[in-house]
Amino acid sequence: MISSFNSSLLENAVNELSKLPGIGRKTALRLALHMLRRDENEAVALGESIINMRRNICYCSRCHNISEQEICPICNDSRRDQETVCVVENVKDVITIESTRQHSGLYHVLGGLISPLDGISPSDLEIESLVARVKEEKLKEIILALSPTIEGDTTNFYIFRKLADLPVRVTMLARGLSIGNELEYTDELTLGKSIQNRVLFSDSFNQKS
Amino acid sequence: MISSFNSSLLENAVNELSKLPGIGRKTALRLALHMLRRDENEAVALGESIINMRRNICYCSRCHNISEQEICPICNDSRRDQETVCVVENVKDVITIESTRQHSGLYHVLGGLISPLDGISPSDLEIESLVARVKEEKLKEIILALSPTIEGDTTNFYIFRKLADLPVRVTMLARGLSIGNELEYTDELTLGKSIQNRVLFSDSFNQKS
Repeated sequence: MISSFNSSLLENAVNELSKLPGIGRKTALRLALHMLRRDENEAVALGESIINMRRNICYCSRCHNISEQEICPICNDSRRDQETVCVVENVKDVITIESTRQHSGLYHVLGGLISPLDGISPSDLEIESLVARVKEEKLKEIILALSPTIEGDTTNFYIFRKLADLPVRVTMLARGLSIGNELEYTDELTLGKSIQNRVLFSDSFNQKS
Repeated sequence: MISSFNSSLLENAVNELSKLPGIGRKTALRLALHMLRRDENEAVALGESIINMRRNICYCSRCHNISEQEICPICNDSRRDQETVCVVENVKDVITIESTRQHSGLYHVLGGLISPLDGISPSDLEIESLVARVKEEKLKEIILALSPTIEGDTTNFYIFRKLADLPVRVTMLARGLSIGNELEYTDELTLGKSIQNRVLFSDSFNQKS
């Protein structure tokens, strides 16, 4: 549909924008024309923020979370519990868990989940480095915080086996009712798990939220 | 939901991306993390294409379409019919009409439609400059190619009145059946117009497509 842009600069920007996931050529054109209508400073700020971010963000050599230094601010924060590490699939999950303010320990970002169908094997993930951290940092607890999917469960089990001989407590996130959801619409597997893992009602008062 | 980014560079990029229309903070974070995973050159190319586009694209002083020079390539193209001007709402409509390859004349971009409810009056649009072009360039035909909405029809009528005393033919895009749509699902107004404006069947053979 969109052929004659009348400007190679516009065409170039549309081409680059449409490489982003979920952004087709029509949306890219809409975004580019929006930027042309707005103040020049806005487009320059956007462009520079993208370049600066990509050029200066690296990965923490300890937990593999994004970082602007060799070691990320979370790993460097001495107020955090240095002996409890939460294992997550990716950087986004770190942000999501941080937003709950319920985890005061460190993280370990795997960079994916074991998925033979997608060609992702344990060696593609940061699992060996997790085992090394458990030994070197004498970690007391590993919290497996992967998605409750086949890939997540496979990865959970693989890590659990790898850590079986080490003196570390391996826990995983509770599976149960979603807060705000009706019992009636909760699937049977989840409901079953929530019965198996029921907790003392009196304990729910003592948890800080 | 998204609070602790662990990186001011990421936060900055997410803030700038989420200023774009239709992109919320969650999508902005998804796009930013995508760029972090991909090659650095890709993000730099995107950032630079946005900055270059915004810095170097201006508006054609004759037709008000986007341009990289004072006069746009369409206005400068001597092979195009210099006496027929298609009046459109915005830059996107120029691209859409160009893609049909059915208009060999020039354009005039109004920059919007008359809409009292949105506070857009005729003086906010490039209508006076259109009247001036009709006089100065001795235009023979003005094709009104505005959307068939209340605002489009109001603007059509306003321009028609403004040009009433000038020796120029004022035409508008045909309204009728959408190609590929079933007759049954065509609204009555459109169907009525398509009956009023019916064309000779034999003429449809002679039109190049």
